[in-house]
Amino acid sequence: MFKSPPEKPPRTRRYVDEAFRQIQEKKNIRDIIIINEFGIPVKSTMEFDTSVKFVGHFQELRGRLERGMEKMDPNDEFLMLRVRTKTHEVMLVPDVKITVIVVQNAAK
Amino acid sequence: MFKSPPEKPPRTRRYVDEAFRQIQEKKNIRDIIIINEFGIPVKSTMEFDTSVKFVGHFQELRGRLERGMEKMDPNDEFLMLRVRTKTHEVMLVPDVKITVIVVQNAAK
Repeated sequence: MFKSPPEKPPRTRRYVDEAFRQIQEKKNIRDIIIINEFGIPVKSTMEFDTSVKFVGHFQELRGRLERGMEKMDPNDEFLMLRVRTKTHEVMLVPDVKITVIVVQNAAK
Repeated sequence: MFKSPPEKPPRTRRYVDEAFRQIQEKKNIRDIIIINEFGIPVKSTMEFDTSVKFVGHFQELRGRLERGMEKMDPNDEFLMLRVRTKTHEVMLVPDVKITVIVVQNAAK
């Protein structure tokens, strides 16, 4: 089911910190979670337990999405998942070895 | 003595057609599927079988999403799901009685 990941440079702590910092500068950011290739939150504005729960939910969605894509068009590549609700918007963006989840407050 | 059964308000069909028309006017639209409250495609630019397959995948995602939201914050309300891939972006937007799925070509 899983292809072996392509050889890519490792994502360092510095890379994670820099990604985190750049996202923080954007507007209306409520929360940021950065997870490693094993799905573990490595940096987050949420409490660890809350991060894990939140990440679990979105990683499950993402997995389902990717399995569906694999069937429909194996050559396509997943870039971003966004979920908008009345109170917020969640963005999940996979990077080479990390995945970034950002929660923005809903625009007024 | 026998009256013909009350007709369904024509609003629904008109409403679907109007929504469809308005979306078609937007840029980069590849496909539009409008599904009714039972998850059946009632108007689509895709072949019926393809629509059903596509809708099945996204309705499953949406169901999972809503069940997760119900657990995390039962008072929140799901407004839009967007999935961006290398080749396209899919938007799923629930409306009162219908759900609109739009596939846009990825911006160059």
